[in-house]
Amino acid sequence: MAPTYTMAGGKGPNSYSQHSTYQRALLEVAKEKISEAISTKLEINSASNRFNIADFGCSTGPNTFLAVQNIIDAVGQKYRKETQKNPDDNIEFQVLFNDHSNNDFNTLFQTLPPTKEYFVAGVPGSFFGRVLPRDSLHVGHCSYSLHWLSQVPKGIADRNSPAWNKDIHCTGFSDEVAEAYLDQFKIDMGSFLKGRGEELVSGGLLFLLGSCVPDGVKMSETMKGMLLDHLGNCLNDVAKEGLINQEELDSFNFPIYPAHVAEFKSVIEDNGCFTIEAFEKISHANEEFPLDPEFLATSNKVTFGGVIESRFGKEAMERTNELYEKKCPEILPELANAKSGMQFFIMLRRN
Amino acid sequence: MAPTYTMAGGKGPNSYSQHSTYQRALLEVAKEKISEAISTKLEINSASNRFNIADFGCSTGPNTFLAVQNIIDAVGQKYRKETQKNPDDNIEFQVLFNDHSNNDFNTLFQTLPPTKEYFVAGVPGSFFGRVLPRDSLHVGHCSYSLHWLSQVPKGIADRNSPAWNKDIHCTGFSDEVAEAYLDQFKIDMGSFLKGRGEELVSGGLLFLLGSCVPDGVKMSETMKGMLLDHLGNCLNDVAKEGLINQEELDSFNFPIYPAHVAEFKSVIEDNGCFTIEAFEKISHANEEFPLDPEFLATSNKVTFGGVIESRFGKEAMERTNELYEKKCPEILPELANAKSGMQFFIMLRRN
Repeated sequence: MAPTYTMAGGKGPNSYSQHSTYQRALLEVAKEKISEAISTKLEINSASNRFNIADFGCSTGPNTFLAVQNIIDAVGQKYRKETQKNPDDNIEFQVLFNDHSNNDFNTLFQTLPPTKEYFVAGVPGSFFGRVLPRDSLHVGHCSYSLHWLSQVPKGIADRNSPAWNKDIHCTGFSDEVAEAYLDQFKIDMGSFLKGRGEELVSGGLLFLLGSCVPDGVKMSETMKGMLLDHLGNCLNDVAKEGLINQEELDSFNFPIYPAHVAEFKSVIEDNGCFTIEAFEKISHANEEFPLDPEFLATSNKVTFGGVIESRFGKEAMERTNELYEKKCPEILPELANAKSGMQFFIMLRRN
Repeated sequence: MAPTYTMAGGKGPNSYSQHSTYQRALLEVAKEKISEAISTKLEINSASNRFNIADFGCSTGPNTFLAVQNIIDAVGQKYRKETQKNPDDNIEFQVLFNDHSNNDFNTLFQTLPPTKEYFVAGVPGSFFGRVLPRDSLHVGHCSYSLHWLSQVPKGIADRNSPAWNKDIHCTGFSDEVAEAYLDQFKIDMGSFLKGRGEELVSGGLLFLLGSCVPDGVKMSETMKGMLLDHLGNCLNDVAKEGLINQEELDSFNFPIYPAHVAEFKSVIEDNGCFTIEAFEKISHANEEFPLDPEFLATSNKVTFGGVIESRFGKEAMERTNELYEKKCPEILPELANAKSGMQFFIMLRRN
């Protein structure tokens, strides 16, 4: 039952490790916000010498190392300021790297920063459930992971359901399809928050970063929506060429849902464990993908290649990606006019 | 600088995972001793709902799962008896699986028992240093790992040193060689105990299992010593055939040292953090290896194949193992008359 969507492992040119500069740019911008948030919103318990930080959906690095180091630096500064003591002599940090049990933890562990000054633990398991002991966590972080659902919503892949979505993803959203996706998002995001609510100490902070859709904008009007539709078209082409069974493709969908801002807020409020300290749009230089077919194709392969390969085989995946790059120029004018998506920075404080 | 001796990963027929029944048999016998020790020697803090267990040198499973489950069951029984409360409702167990960062944690995480009722964390790093926060551990366990040294002792591999050991291991021990090995053991075991001393809470227990040599017996008189000498002879044969450079072989040694009982005790006493609650010989049905060339060769490959391959290449390793099995019958009479080694069960309590 555990979802099995992980990024491409290893350290090669097509690995997530080598192709996550987009997410990295967001982290750089978030760094200052996180630092300020920790400085003003975190209560330091100067009696305790232990401080635990978790990154949920850490993948294989290196972004996760940057993210947790930002947090450690900020906590250290705050500690020094409040207690006039050296954090290096007084606090022991433990960083818990969480991802699915089929994530490539070997690569993560073998590429840890040699200068790290924290204890490391890899925590395998779905973050839709509990993965850490109760009240054991001081700061949680989750970047670019919450658009992944635990599963394709019920009915979406079923030809006989009113929510059947023949298209790969978003353009063809009927009301029933949209509702099925939203329902699944509510369940999953609710489970995520329930888990973190039990793991975080009272007063602990949870930072969420990623992509969502501004209220009033449809996913299909954003660049990411258009690129998913483009991927759907390429998969259909490959089915026509015979490498993919058309019927199987008609019931294939990605378990992703970039929620609208209001939907996010509503799930957080329903959970009731957290105060929303910040919910902001943040901007960075690499915010929109460059309109470069080769870049877009590699990005697509790194993110979706694994899911496609596990469902339709390696040859079909490679052919799809070839078409994706080749036909990309046709949609560049459309992409250039896409409505903006939104990169969110959310800070929650455990009540 | 980190030592890199890990057992063969994966799940195949030559993996440690499939070939550790010898160690498993010891665990079965140790189960009762551990259970009794926890029942009589562990102080349960009924105010705390958290209980942390670590296995140091966990390898890839499945033995480690058995070992930690034994401990969890015993703690649960003790808790139930002392508090009349159900441990399942009140204690959250977290198990920290420790091994080198190049251990195959992916296999470990993907073969976790589906029925496990504990939180999992993989902790990469050498147990000769600290790997966990201070005062964070209630019970530690280390099975069949402490005969591995952090490095081949200084001088042993140096042709110009009085401690140069031209032989692969033990028969030719000169006083200087023996002293160099013992010195390294004292350093490494001392570091191990220093680390655990800081990690364990006061009153916490540390269980150590493995092979040592009874006082008064020489390693070369035991079956394990004879088998190492046999391996050394086979490596020399392969060097004569040309697959291994003789000069390189002359400076090659394994970083292992099965200590004598008195040496073990002396290092523990020098550390000063622990009370020795038990230091016993334990026996089990599979205590001595069966005198079966195929079994012995596979055992040898699983344990030493990785080190040999990384030093001399795959072809040399395969050829060595072929000769090992082929020439094994020649030493069977000698093996049959070997002096007994000793399987130890040590229980230490953190002062």
